Amino acid sequence: MTAAREHFYQVLFSRRDVRGQFLADPVDPEALARVLWAAHHAPSVGFSQPWNFILVRDPAVKARVHAAFRRARDAEAGLFAGERRDAYRRLRLEGIVDAPVNLCITCDRRRGGPVVLGRTRQPDTDLYSTVCAVQNLWLAARAEGLGLGWVSIIEPAALSAIFQLPEGVVPVAYVCLGRVAYFHDEPELQARGWASRVPLDDLVFDECWGRRDDGDPLRHAIAATSPADMSPGAADVSL
Amino acid sequence: MTAAREHFYQVLFSRRDVRGQFLADPVDPEALARVLWAAHHAPSVGFSQPWNFILVRDPAVKARVHAAFRRARDAEAGLFAGERRDAYRRLRLEGIVDAPVNLCITCDRRRGGPVVLGRTRQPDTDLYSTVCAVQNLWLAARAEGLGLGWVSIIEPAALSAIFQLPEGVVPVAYVCLGRVAYFHDEPELQARGWASRVPLDDLVFDECWGRRDDGDPLRHAIAATSPADMSPGAADVSL
Repeated sequence: MTAAREHFYQVLFSRRDVRGQFLADPVDPEALARVLWAAHHAPSVGFSQPWNFILVRDPAVKARVHAAFRRARDAEAGLFAGERRDAYRRLRLEGIVDAPVNLCITCDRRRGGPVVLGRTRQPDTDLYSTVCAVQNLWLAARAEGLGLGWVSIIEPAALSAIFQLPEGVVPVAYVCLGRVAYFHDEPELQARGWASRVPLDDLVFDECWGRRDDGDPLRHAIAATSPADMSPGAADVSL
Repeated sequence: MTAAREHFYQVLFSRRDVRGQFLADPVDPEALARVLWAAHHAPSVGFSQPWNFILVRDPAVKARVHAAFRRARDAEAGLFAGERRDAYRRLRLEGIVDAPVNLCITCDRRRGGPVVLGRTRQPDTDLYSTVCAVQNLWLAARAEGLGLGWVSIIEPAALSAIFQLPEGVVPVAYVCLGRVAYFHDEPELQARGWASRVPLDDLVFDECWGRRDDGDPLRHAIAATSPADMSPGAADVSL
């Protein structure tokens, strides 16, 4: 499956967190259906499928979410000082109003009943399953040529109020989705000097936290491999 | 990018949570390096990249994890009654000893410092970033013809002790990885009658929890689409 593998890596490595490049064109309903199918086929603890997808296209609803974002951004900006605060203020952090479609993706913590297989020792695995659905949706969007951005600068209580979530249902992700003018070549926070990519080799340990076996052939393979080699056509993946 | 899209969906829809089909063959270090690169290119809140990957290949370490799994499984089994408990006892729930490689994937909650962009209103988004890395790793494994299973029937404290995680670092996922004899056509918990796939259409709302717009073209598109149509070659994807 070499061609499939290469195509898969092209999608994976060209995925971006999109904030500022959304076009107003509507999203094709068939493409939207496909990304929802992809999300719904994420893994879930005990096959509980705890997710729901609330589609947001009404400008009045988007305006309420955007107001909640602005309040949260102002609060967060106040936690940075000096140049870092100025840099924060210059960042584009969301595409709530610009993106034709937003989605609030929730986790129904009641789903599957009081005892869910695989969730009794790790109660947050239902939230993690929902995140797997978000990541499937994100990658599928990229495969469809659609940009997606995850907006986490917002109080969960504001989302619960706007979308009238019942007791036991929590918001996990609020995302903006749509066609884009272009995809950045690298993460924006890296391009703007906010943060740097950590070397992969530093993040891999052997058998125990902090232990490294430098003779492991894997160490050489990590150094000899790169995303650019794995997805040579990624820069040319059409929108 | 039609061919790329179809290949991407073949990988996504043929991914399974593997427990019982692992082969003892070692994993190619280059394939392992590629899946780690894929995991490392997951999205992360404020580009904080909070993940680490502890590789487990030592039988003695696997044996300690397996003992912790057995204790957790016995405790969980006791929460089911009658036929459901018998069915639980018959399920194969992990491949810790059989899989040539296990990974403990952790989240370093200190990474990025005390104020991480995007994490101040939603403090658990670092855990969610780590889950995105797990899902990237899982899909990349499938693209490489490798099976992966997530074992959540284990006390987090046991993992922290076995891997000597420092204060501030938490285990997010313990997974088993390796070549497999075959991939199941559908989720095992579905095939064995433990749980059923929820209709996607029931999980999608419009603008607000519980609201449906039956005239939305998306409703028709969801009904007219299926994973089988989106990935016609999935059943033939070679290992």
